[in-house]
Formats: sequence, structure tokens, C-alpha cells
Amino acid sequence: MAKQSSKTDQAKGKAKPRPSAAAGDDTKITALTLEPAPLSPEMAAYFAKCEEKLGFIPNVLKAYGFDMAKLTAFVGMYNDLMLAPSGLSKLEREMIAVAVSSHNRCYYCLVAHGAAVRQLSGDPVLGELMVMNYRAARLSERQRAMLNFAVKLAAEPWLVEEEDRAALRQAGFSDRDIWDIAAVAGFFNMTNRVASATDMRPNSVYHGQSR
Amino acid sequence: MAKQSSKTDQAKGKAKPRPSAAAGDDTKITALTLEPAPLSPEMAAYFAKCEEKLGFIPNVLKAYGFDMAKLTAFVGMYNDLMLAPSGLSKLEREMIAVAVSSHNRCYYCLVAHGAAVRQLSGDPVLGELMVMNYRAARLSERQRAMLNFAVKLAAEPWLVEEEDRAALRQAGFSDRDIWDIAAVAGFFNMTNRVASATDMRPNSVYHGQSR
Amino acid sequence: MAKQSSKTDQAKGKAKPRPSAAAGDDTKITALTLEPAPLSPEMAAYFAKCEEKLGFIPNVLKAYGFDMAKLTAFVGMYNDLMLAPSGLSKLEREMIAVAVSSHNRCYYCLVAHGAAVRQLSGDPVLGELMVMNYRAARLSERQRAMLNFAVKLAAEPWLVEEEDRAALRQAGFSDRDIWDIAAVAGFFNMTNRVASATDMRPNSVYHGQSR
Amino acid sequence: MAKQSSKTDQAKGKAKPRPSAAAGDDTKITALTLEPAPLSPEMAAYFAKCEEKLGFIPNVLKAYGFDMAKLTAFVGMYNDLMLAPSGLSKLEREMIAVAVSSHNRCYYCLVAHGAAVRQLSGDPVLGELMVMNYRAARLSERQRAMLNFAVKLAAEPWLVEEEDRAALRQAGFSDRDIWDIAAVAGFFNMTNRVASATDMRPNSVYHGQSR
Amino acid sequence: MAKQSSKTDQAKGKAKPRPSAAAGDDTKITALTLEPAPLSPEMAAYFAKCEEKLGFIPNVLKAYGFDMAKLTAFVGMYNDLMLAPSGLSKLEREMIAVAVSSHNRCYYCLVAHGAAVRQLSGDPVLGELMVMNYRAARLSERQRAMLNFAVKLAAEPWLVEEEDRAALRQAGFSDRDIWDIAAVAGFFNMTNRVASATDMRPNSVYHGQSR
Amino acid sequence: MAKQSSKTDQAKGKAKPRPSAAAGDDTKITALTLEPAPLSPEMAAYFAKCEEKLGFIPNVLKAYGFDMAKLTAFVGMYNDLMLAPSGLSKLEREMIAVAVSSHNRCYYCLVAHGAAVRQLSGDPVLGELMVMNYRAARLSERQRAMLNFAVKLAAEPWLVEEEDRAALRQAGFSDRDIWDIAAVAGFFNMTNRVASATDMRPNSVYHGQSR
Repeated sequence: MAKQSSKTDQAKGKAKPRPSAAAGDDTKITALTLEPAPLSPEMAAYFAKCEEKLGFIPNVLKAYGFDMAKLTAFVGMYNDLMLAPSGLSKLEREMIAVAVSSHNRCYYCLVAHGAAVRQLSGDPVLGELMVMNYRAARLSERQRAMLNFAVKLAAEPWLVEEEDRAALRQAGFSDRDIWDIAAVAGFFNMTNRVASATDMRPNSVYHGQSR
Repeated sequence: MAKQSSKTDQAKGKAKPRPSAAAGDDTKITALTLEPAPLSPEMAAYFAKCEEKLGFIPNVLKAYGFDMAKLTAFVGMYNDLMLAPSGLSKLEREMIAVAVSSHNRCYYCLVAHGAAVRQLSGDPVLGELMVMNYRAARLSERQRAMLNFAVKLAAEPWLVEEEDRAALRQAGFSDRDIWDIAAVAGFFNMTNRVASATDMRPNSVYHGQSR
Repeated sequence: MAKQSSKTDQAKGKAKPRPSAAAGDDTKITALTLEPAPLSPEMAAYFAKCEEKLGFIPNVLKAYGFDMAKLTAFVGMYNDLMLAPSGLSKLEREMIAVAVSSHNRCYYCLVAHGAAVRQLSGDPVLGELMVMNYRAARLSERQRAMLNFAVKLAAEPWLVEEEDRAALRQAGFSDRDIWDIAAVAGFFNMTNRVASATDMRPNSVYHGQSR
Repeated sequence: MAKQSSKTDQAKGKAKPRPSAAAGDDTKITALTLEPAPLSPEMAAYFAKCEEKLGFIPNVLKAYGFDMAKLTAFVGMYNDLMLAPSGLSKLEREMIAVAVSSHNRCYYCLVAHGAAVRQLSGDPVLGELMVMNYRAARLSERQRAMLNFAVKLAAEPWLVEEEDRAALRQAGFSDRDIWDIAAVAGFFNMTNRVASATDMRPNSVYHGQSR
Repeated sequence: MAKQSSKTDQAKGKAKPRPSAAAGDDTKITALTLEPAPLSPEMAAYFAKCEEKLGFIPNVLKAYGFDMAKLTAFVGMYNDLMLAPSGLSKLEREMIAVAVSSHNRCYYCLVAHGAAVRQLSGDPVLGELMVMNYRAARLSERQRAMLNFAVKLAAEPWLVEEEDRAALRQAGFSDRDIWDIAAVAGFFNMTNRVASATDMRPNSVYHGQSR
Repeated sequence: MAKQSSKTDQAKGKAKPRPSAAAGDDTKITALTLEPAPLSPEMAAYFAKCEEKLGFIPNVLKAYGFDMAKLTAFVGMYNDLMLAPSGLSKLEREMIAVAVSSHNRCYYCLVAHGAAVRQLSGDPVLGELMVMNYRAARLSERQRAMLNFAVKLAAEPWLVEEEDRAALRQAGFSDRDIWDIAAVAGFFNMTNRVASATDMRPNSVYHGQSR
């Protein structure tokens, strides 16, 4: 992390990452030994954009970096789900990400997306609440219904039925919104498992962000 | 389904789909009302290829068809995971798909990928075993270890640790193979939830395939 | 299986059993080594009737065949529960059998009674739905209430209370019907465990029946 | 309960049943209204034997008394399982009954079979331990292995595999014994559910027996 | 236990403790070897009062006796919770203790507090019902609501929300009563774990009390 | 919070609490309306000491403040457990507190004791790891064994047996240490439930501490 990016950090209110014995060596990203592949031009440009906008490359991208096809597919789906236009705000999508990751107790995703909730909401405590127990948060009925659906889907997808969708419609969500809630909740049920299976370690810079 | 595709069906040993009161109307693919978007040229070509190779368009593709970006991202990730070169055979990837979907009791994925296991293995009972309880199947140590890992990851991802990875290595899997097991298991933990959240219905043609 | 019974098979629309590496050796019925006892006259007549009507002896009967008293008691209870007059149709009793066996992931009972649901309903997909997740089936309110009760009884019998019985009465069931639902659900909670404890293997002929 | 049977009670060291507000009306045996059928000669003789030996008719028999075929089938299976020759002692079979019923929190079976454990063992505390948590009891390795298997079978039958049977063989059980453990455990998984489904109430006389 | 206390026992209707092979040696109170500390004057007086009132020292007190500060803190909290003025009767507090201990299957607490429920209620069967399954008891709406809350708090505290408190208020409980229900339920969730962690053994005298 | 205590805050490296919509009104400490009692001299002195040392009164103390006997008993037990001499360091006791509270998803305790882990360890990430999933932390064998025991005790206390205690002894813990692990784990199983039952809200100052 060069001087410049450090300046960028301060501009964005991010704390400087501190070494942590409990987190372990930040440079070993997963428990698997997989040789990085050369970045494709598309992915090289994307990494450069991350570096510029965030000041670092999220470790999940480096973890996928052993295979350009897999990295590209992951980035494509991630960006569509989390950034494309939707009836759900970007913050709401991150709230789903963290509430699902809390159910699955996924260290990587809780750290990275907990930081995103803090940053997007400007309410650091909201990030903590999503990590700890979303039921303790003071939320609008809409957001509460959204998280109830997402966490039920994480915990017992076989029990989700029409009445669960009806509760979302009752809370003001359109059918398209319901798809998006399901898709985001589903996606983090995937990434939680890839991260847990490989002991993926988050960039330590996240910890101090937007506190 | 025109005469021609029916002939294709017979050539592939697929039974003609029968109407089922219990399965309901095959033409209503999900519980959500989402207008199909015009197919992009890439997706139109992909659908044509499905029609040609399978004789039908899998309903999950039609379900994603309301948004070309989402459909494209899904197809990209699916094809990479299930068809790209890997230390896991295509059959093994389908076995993971079904064992995970059995844990999550996902009707769509059990039907569609159960058929794939029957077809790829030429052993229809293997498909049933993956649907019902993979622990009752006579499997090689390798495949048993693979499914133990995948189903633990589905059920309690927070408990997966180094000793679980060690068991896979012991069974002969490389680190790259471990990634692939995790990625396929993760992916079906996603699709199981999208399917359950939307009550996605499988093409009825799957039921009779490769029995 | 002689020529004649093979003819019987075709007459009944049953497929010829195929060997399956995953299912293992069909002639080893359980993991226990128990010497068959000589059939009592009553049981010899019953086995002959099975051979005549079904074309084979269900393996569960052979498994109990080491002790005539146990076999006779099992057959007596089974036939009363599944075949005697009841407010529940034979199909409904088989639906309970499969939904309970799905909760308990019992390979033997899912195969044998899944076939029975397919045969009695003439709707092969109904059999699959009972195996995979009964909640995904399009059922009458009556049958849905029946299965909700049976599966709750399988999963958390300690939580069943008056309101659960009230829901059955509301769906049109008499007190005698409630007994029968409980008794059939209870019975398969027994057989699921005997089968799982002994690794009981179903006759392979079931797999192709009524597809 | 006439004078004579009261005398019989004392001879057997049974306490006189006391009315209990919490247990409710002892004469309403289940929550279902089912007309008693006339006793068949065989069942009339059996009831008379119960009255003579126990001083009362166990309520479960009265509950089945609406249908002679069902009552006869139940009595046949029960007596074979619990009283016929077996490598398991009668006490061990009752210990399985209670440990399984404790897992399922079945009031009827815990009361009736808890009393049986107290009586057969002459150790009232053993009855309490089976009701409360068999893991807290000082048991032989044999009995501990037996109950571990029975309770795993009650809780998660889908996880029972060869290594569980191997543990029983290691503890000295024959294959026939393993069948009997499975059959008794299975049976109480059935009766626990019939009792819970119908809110079956035990004879109050059990409570004071063999304390 | 001297002659005198034996007389006290009879006066209180307590049975004489019998040795039990299954319970093991009554004089080894926990699985930990911890040297008793000299009793402080306050605790010596308290032990003397126990001896006088109960005829014995509850083993939990002896278990804490290795450290006077810990013993004093435990006794202070216990006596406040179970004996101080409250909108809950002493019996109700003991009912919570046993229902929570039943959820946690804690042998020590079920024995000791099951006896207390029998004694305080004068209804021995109520004690059994709390041990076995409080849902099978005929309770007032008030007591049923109280136990529903306490057992949910034991089982899934993260799901307790305003509607659970509302149900208690609906059943007539004040906010202070809700605190007391929570505090008693919480306390036994603590002691259940201390007892299970140390294999704490109850005084055998409890078993025969108030039967 | 006066100017002075604000200065104290800075001296201690604590961030100034920020209002959070998601956390709600910091001045409403629980969902129960309980009138504060006048502080006893002992408790007044204790509150003054908190104010001096911490710069604030932890909300749990205010929550207990409606009754001096309860507050005194709570403070007595808390201080003995967390601050008295022990083979466990203060940090280790706080790690147990947070790992148990994570299992129980208790917002209050995760916030308050997560801050304590950050502060005592000087490793903010260790606090996050205890909140999110202690299994992802790089811990010594000793601390890992300690948390395995504590979390098993939280999750399934009925399964704790001699082999669990043996694992602690193997990791170097004395019998007295085992007691302390059990007692601290037990205590937070209590407070988690009191906090969840009453929707207890942590002081917002905790959130920014020792980041």
C-alpha cells in the first residue's frame, strides 16, 4: 500500500490497517495454494479501478484470480446483483448480504460487507446490528420484512412458500424486488460457503472503515 | 414441443412429459410475474443451442429471462462451473448439485440435476440415491469424501475447518479440486434459494429422462 | 425372476430392474447377517400372494424373515394400517409414508413407497414431489393439512398440540381420520429407523415402476 | 379400582394414584372421541390378564380399543418386542423405550415406561436418569453403546451408518441384538408419535410405582 | 445423616435416600477435584439453616464450597431470585426452573427442582410434567404463557421480540413480572450449564421427596 | 456526559458515541418500564467508580437498578467471575463472554464485551472474530479448546461429558480452570437471555471503543 493510497484512505475516512495476531497473516488469502493466473485485460482494468476507487483489491477477487473465467463470471454476477438498478437500494442489498452472512457466520463476508453497510448508511451501528442480530435493529417495516425473508431463505429455504412472498408484497415490494431479494440472499449463501470452505481472509483495511 | 423435437426426445431416450396435477401448470415457471425481456443475440444463440441439444429450454433460463444482464451472468457462471475443465468429472459436479439440493429440499434442482446424474452415470438409481440420501449409496472413498464436504458446507458452513480440507486431500483431491467442490456446492446453495424463493417449476420432461 | 414374472411385470407396466453400482448388491438385503427362519404356513401363503400380485417379495419382508413372530406382527400391523378401511385413501396413506420418509431421508421407504404413490395416483410426478418436498406440490387443502400434521409429528412430536388437531378437523378430518394419520405417520417413523439402522436395501424393481 | 385390586397394588408396592390437576381427568384417555369397540375374545382375555397382573388396563390399550384389528396388531407387536426372548434383557428394552421417549419428550411413554425401568431394575433413580438424560447415568459400556445407538436413531436416523453398527458389535452385541435395539427404538418412535398426536394420558397409578 | 434428621425427613414426608448404581457415588459431587474452603461465618450459618430446614446441604452449595466469594455470590443471587417477593409465586419460579432444565436436559436441576415443584404444589404429577414436557400439562393460560416464554428464551433467545413480551402482558403479567420470568429462566440456563459442565450430582434424598 | 468525562474518553482512546437510527434511543435501556430504585450506598459508590473508571454507567447496571437486592447480587457475581483471581486471564474470560454471546446472538453482550476484548487484547480484530465466528481466529490450542468447550456448553449442554473435560485438561487447564470456564460460559448464557428477553440496549459509547 503506497503513500498515495494511504492518502486516499484518509480522504475516505478509512483507518490504516493494523496487524492482528488473531486474524493472521493478511497476505495468505485462503487455505488453498492456487497459482494466480495472468490478469485478462478486462480484469486488469477492473483491478485498477478497485485500486483507484477503494485503495485496495478485495481479497475475494485475488482468491478467484487463479482462473480468469471464474473471476470474470464472479465479478459479472456480483456487480450486476449489488450495483445494477433495482428497487432495492445498494444499502439494502448490503444489509441482506450481512444478515445472511451472520446466519452463516462467515468471517470474510461479515467483515467486508459489514464495512459496506457502515459506509453506505453512515450509521456504523447499523453495520454492527446486521452482524450481530438484525432483529435487534430499529428498522422500517419494509426492511424488516426484507431481512426476515432473506434470513428464512438462508436458514430453511424448504419452508419458503406463498405466504412469505405475500408478506413481502404486503410490505411494498414488487415481484421484481422479490427476485432481487432472493438473488442477493442466494448469492451470499454461495459466497459464504466458498469463503468458509477456503478459510478466506478479508483485507484488514475493512476493520477500521467507517467506524 | 413440435414433432421434430419429440423425435429428438426419443433419440435421446427421453420420455414424453406427462401432465401432472401435483406439479401444476408447466407454463407458469415461477410464482413471480416478470415480463420476459427480448433475448440478446448471445442469449438467443444459447437458447437455440439448448433447444437443439436438449430439445427444450430449461425453465431456470426462462425464469432469468426478464433481464439479459442477469441471465448472461447466470449462464456464464453455470457453464464455467459445470462444464469447464476440472479435476471433478461432470458427473461428480452433478452429484454435488443433487446432494446439496437434497439437503435444501429444492424441488427444481432435484428434478433437473437428478436427471443429469441419471444421464451422465447411466445408473438411474444413482440419481435416486443422491436425491434421497447420498449416505446410502455405494460410493468410492473419493466421492464419499467429496459429498461429505459439500453437504457439511451446505448444512453448517461455519463449522468447516482445516481438518475438513485435510480429509479431501487425503481422498486425493488437489487444492484446485477443493475449490471446485466448494464452488459447485456454493452455487447450488444459491440456486436452491432462488428456486425456493420463487417456487420455480422444472420442465416436466426431466421426470422421465434416463429412467 | 423367471420369464413368467417378467411377463407379469410388463402387464403391470413395471420396468425390468437394472443393476446399479451405486445401489450395490441387491441380494444383500441388510447389513446384518441373520439366518432366514422357515416360513410359517401363514407367511408362506402371504409370500406367495406377494409373488403373484407384485411379481416379487418386498425386501422388508425378507429382512424380517429371520423370526416368524416378528414377521407376522409386522405384516399384521402393516396391512391393517395401509389396506384396511379408513377415511384416508390408500394413496393418502402412501403420501404420508413418503413425506415422513423424506423427513427421515430413509432410502428404503422412499424407493418402495415412492413407487406406490406413483402407481396409486397414476401421477409419477406426485411420487417425486413427496420424495423431494411435499410443500412444492399442488395439493388440496385436505391433503396439505394431512401432510403438515404428519411431517410435524415426524420432526417435532413434542410440539403437537390441540391446535394441530383443530387444523385437521378444520380440513374435514374426523377424529378417526386423525388417529389414522397419526398411526401411519408413526408407523413410518418406526420403519424408517429399522431400515436406516440395518441399511435395508429396496428391491431394484421399484425404481422403474410407474414412471 | 375395587378393594381387591387395591390390595394387589400394595402387594406389588404400588402407590395409590392421586388426583392431579396438572395431569387432568384420568378417564379421558386421548383428545380424540372414538367409540370403544366390543372386545374380541382374545383381547378380552388379554385385558383380564392385565387387570390380574398389573391391577389396571394400560391406557394405551384402551386408546386402541376402538378397533379390534388395530388393538390386536399393536398388542402382538408390543409383546413380541418387549417380552419375547432376546439378547437384550427386558430392562434393557425398557431403557431404550425411555431414552427414546425422552428424546421425543413423550409424556405417556415416559410415565409408563419410566415406571417399568424403576420396577425391573429395582433402582428408581435409573428410571429418572433415563427420563432426564441417559448420558448422566453410570452405565456399563454395553448399555451406553446401546442407548447411544438408539438415541441417534431417534434423532438423526439418516446419519446412522456402518460405523454405528460397528460400535455395537464392539460392545458385544450380535447382529440379532442390533436388530432388536433398532426394532425397540423404532417402535417407541412410533408410539411416541401416536401418543403425542392424540395427547394420550397415562394411568395415574404409574406415577407412584416403585419409587 | 443422623437419627434426628431422619425423623425430620419423615415429618416432611421425605423418603429415605436409597443407593443407586446408576446414579453412582453420592459423595462425589462433581467430576472436578476442588478442595473445600473453610466456610465463612455467613456461609456456615447458611449451611446450618439448610441442615435444619431441609435436613441436608444441597450438593450445588458444596460444589461451590471451594471458594467463599463464589459461594456467597451464588447463594445471594439464588435466594433473591427464588425467594424474594415477586409477582410470580415460588411454585411458578420452580416451574420455570424445571421447564428450562428440561429443555437443557440437566440432571442435577431436574432432580432438585422437580422435587421442589412436587413439594410446593402438593401435586407430584406436576413435577413429572415439568420434567417431561410442560406442554402436556393442564395449566392456566397465565402459567402456560409464562413457560412458553421461558422455554423459547432457553431454546432460541435470539428470536425473542416485542410480540413475546406482549403475549406475557396479555396473560396478565406486569413488566416487573416479565423481568422475573426472564431472570429465573436466565439463571437456570446458567446453572444447567455449570452442572452439565461439571457432571454435578444431586443429593439422592431428592428422588423420594413428595412423591 | 460532561466535559470532563469526555476528556477521560479521549485519554482512554474511546470514540465519542454517535446517534444511530438503527440502534434507537439510547436512553430507553430496556423494553420494560421499571422505576429506578434509590441507589444503596454500596451501589452508589459502585456507580461512581464506574463513572470514574469508564466514564459511563453500563446500561445493564441501570437495567437492574429497579431493585437494589437484584443489582447487588448481579454486581457481586459479575465482579467475582470476571475480575477475581483465576487461571484464566481477564481477556480469556471476555473471549468466552463474546463467543457465547455470539452463539446466542445477543446484541447487548456482543457490543459491550466485544469492546472489552478489543481493549484488553489491544487487537481490535480479535474482538470482531469473537463476535463473528471464533473458529476463524488464529488462536493458541489452549484458547481454542477453551472456546470449543464454552460454545458446546452454550449450544448443547446435555452432550458435555468426561471427554470434553479431558480435552481441557489436555490443553493445560486445571480443574479449577474448568470450573471458571463453565462458570463464565454459564453466566453469559444467563445474561444473554435477560438481555434478549428485555431488549436491553448497550451504551452507544462501546461501539467506537478501541477500534
